[in-house]
Amino acid sequence: MEAVGIGLVGYGTVGSGVGRLLVANAGEIRLATGRDVVLRTVCELDPERQRLVPEGVRITTSFDDLVNDPAIDIVVELIGGIEPARSFQLAALQAGKALVTANKQLLSQHGAELLQAAEDNGTFLRFEASSVGAVPVIKVLRESLAAAQVTGIMGIVNGTTNYILSAMAQTGAEYGPTLKKAQELGYAEADPTEDVTGKDAAAKMAILSSIAFHSRVNLNDVPHEGIEGVTDTDVAHGRELGLVPKLLGVAKLIDGRVNVRVYPCFIPNDHPLAGVSGAYNAVFLESDSFDEIMLFGPGAGGTPTASAVIGDIISIANTAPGGYIRNCTCYKELGFFPSDEVVSRFYVRVQVADQPGVLAALAGVFGEEGVSIASMQQIGEEDSAQLVLVLHPVREDAVSRALARIEALPVVRGRPSVIRIEGGS
Amino acid sequence: MEAVGIGLVGYGTVGSGVGRLLVANAGEIRLATGRDVVLRTVCELDPERQRLVPEGVRITTSFDDLVNDPAIDIVVELIGGIEPARSFQLAALQAGKALVTANKQLLSQHGAELLQAAEDNGTFLRFEASSVGAVPVIKVLRESLAAAQVTGIMGIVNGTTNYILSAMAQTGAEYGPTLKKAQELGYAEADPTEDVTGKDAAAKMAILSSIAFHSRVNLNDVPHEGIEGVTDTDVAHGRELGLVPKLLGVAKLIDGRVNVRVYPCFIPNDHPLAGVSGAYNAVFLESDSFDEIMLFGPGAGGTPTASAVIGDIISIANTAPGGYIRNCTCYKELGFFPSDEVVSRFYVRVQVADQPGVLAALAGVFGEEGVSIASMQQIGEEDSAQLVLVLHPVREDAVSRALARIEALPVVRGRPSVIRIEGGS
Repeated sequence: MEAVGIGLVGYGTVGSGVGRLLVANAGEIRLATGRDVVLRTVCELDPERQRLVPEGVRITTSFDDLVNDPAIDIVVELIGGIEPARSFQLAALQAGKALVTANKQLLSQHGAELLQAAEDNGTFLRFEASSVGAVPVIKVLRESLAAAQVTGIMGIVNGTTNYILSAMAQTGAEYGPTLKKAQELGYAEADPTEDVTGKDAAAKMAILSSIAFHSRVNLNDVPHEGIEGVTDTDVAHGRELGLVPKLLGVAKLIDGRVNVRVYPCFIPNDHPLAGVSGAYNAVFLESDSFDEIMLFGPGAGGTPTASAVIGDIISIANTAPGGYIRNCTCYKELGFFPSDEVVSRFYVRVQVADQPGVLAALAGVFGEEGVSIASMQQIGEEDSAQLVLVLHPVREDAVSRALARIEALPVVRGRPSVIRIEGGS
Repeated sequence: MEAVGIGLVGYGTVGSGVGRLLVANAGEIRLATGRDVVLRTVCELDPERQRLVPEGVRITTSFDDLVNDPAIDIVVELIGGIEPARSFQLAALQAGKALVTANKQLLSQHGAELLQAAEDNGTFLRFEASSVGAVPVIKVLRESLAAAQVTGIMGIVNGTTNYILSAMAQTGAEYGPTLKKAQELGYAEADPTEDVTGKDAAAKMAILSSIAFHSRVNLNDVPHEGIEGVTDTDVAHGRELGLVPKLLGVAKLIDGRVNVRVYPCFIPNDHPLAGVSGAYNAVFLESDSFDEIMLFGPGAGGTPTASAVIGDIISIANTAPGGYIRNCTCYKELGFFPSDEVVSRFYVRVQVADQPGVLAALAGVFGEEGVSIASMQQIGEEDSAQLVLVLHPVREDAVSRALARIEALPVVRGRPSVIRIEGGS
């Protein structure tokens, strides 16, 4: 069979990892595909990075060189961001090239347009590396579980925040110093905003939930809360209750509609996701067909991400022209289920004056709003006390109403802490 | 496109699950494949089971009816065992039918012959459901990680033994009563031999390691030890050391050769596999390319297993004729690495007379055999004592030699307990 020609755009950490693996594992790739897969051209502006390109591979600074080269079958876009990546991808697809990318920003915001372009031009768009690094969640969802009717996804899809929350849980330290330490150790960027605000996780959840629910979910359909407000006090109380803090992407199929969000929450310490610590990622899937499946692995890193790109290249090389592996399984137009109506369990901590009648006042408000208390603990501190409550499953809007009223009570000091509890019953 | 015709052999728990999912998820399957996938014929001898076949589906008691029917594209063999399953599979492949099966016994003993028959006849053999139920480990290994050079597999691939060991660790109970309880609850068969001896796990590890290492591993290449000898005493000592007991399938690529075994071992309680409790299964993969990946889910059960069969059917329906997704990635002929030379960590417990000089005698033997002790604890009991040791990584034959000599010492009572420690450094 003819060789498969690769054109690579962007020779940074992941790009050079792909270049290295294509050369080092050429024999394995040939055996897996029955064809030679050859890196022909690298498009890269930076002379420093150009120096990393293996000998014999052409270097160009013009993307058009890739699009117009008939010896290039698959374009691998690894520059990230919206533009010029979007224009590059569209041009490549319109030229009939297959496309592999790790670009989560672009996929989560312009996925529909790009997948349509692939479909219209009879070619393929693959993006395994855009969501959970080396872990082939997208392939499993698209192919193995295509007919399995996934009903829920819980994802630890951001290594930085998982590292920080794991460290807070382990050491009892506060958020600020833990972030600082994570930055020193290279687990958090100098500007960690995208990670700690949950935006990075939201982009990944938009991609994963699109594939899992066969519908369209865009980044701006995914409300996200970050971990900046998670306190050492709440982490410590959670531990007493057998709960560990995680930043989760939570996607649920409720009454035929979709709710996808990212927020810090507590999960029981015997839940499979609770053991996913440090910079690791994991995606936990629920369905009536298969019960529960979890995929776990490195969510980032040059080599693992490059490995996912190689997986996509092999998948395309193995798909004969006319083979039917859909570019997108987004063939339903499911509506969105309002967050206010989602039923969850909640952890609540309220700082109160240590005087008689306080608990009665709180319990009264919860009762009036239809919120039922599963457990309550009062921890005294000189003249004030902490009330730590776990609520039975209840609609979010009822909790919001109750807490607004509770915050306004004269005996309550400051704002109550509220953290959702996932993964338990 | 034309419909894909399915012929199903064996309408027991899994077979009827496949029948039900094919009907219930017909819409999803059509959207995932672009074609109608239709259950045409069920071959089943038992009249009770025949009654479960959906209306409109032909029932036959002759396997030849499936082989000779040009409207059947994919034969699904779910009767299990070696014969007549082997003859049926060969006949179907020789007739050019694609074949999907959950038959681990057959695949682990006659896989080479069957895969060759598929290859020779230009058709497909798929067997995801033969190893870890609903968890698509084989697809991930064959496709996503085809070029990733997997170096290690640790698998919890038998739900019965994982349930028993999890229960022993949790309750502190002995093996016998825990097995009895598992049988009462339906987690263990009336005759649990295949499970508790590790033979079932060995068959699955033969299949998984063949695919992961691109070599041929047969059931009889996989020595297996069961869990019958795991004592509550060792489980309790393990807990003190931060270790939990698991029956693991362990496959290692060492110096270009393969070592695959099944044995009870200890793993650190913060290892991702440690959190896999009850009847769940998980496969933990190691590679320089992707670091560590773990796949977790239900290892058995009618619906999860049926879900894996459906995944294989979709995979075949999506592979165009001429598409190159190899039936087998067993294209290397790697030798086997001798178990005696494998280096592991060990937990050792020795019952000794409580008298001066005992420790010196033991330490002397270990030292002479080149075995280095990482930690030692002495637990006194009236006139005797337990010595609990953790050894530094060491060749297995050195440990065997040392323990044979130690067992023969006059101060040592009974046989020392030895348990490998995996998943730590």
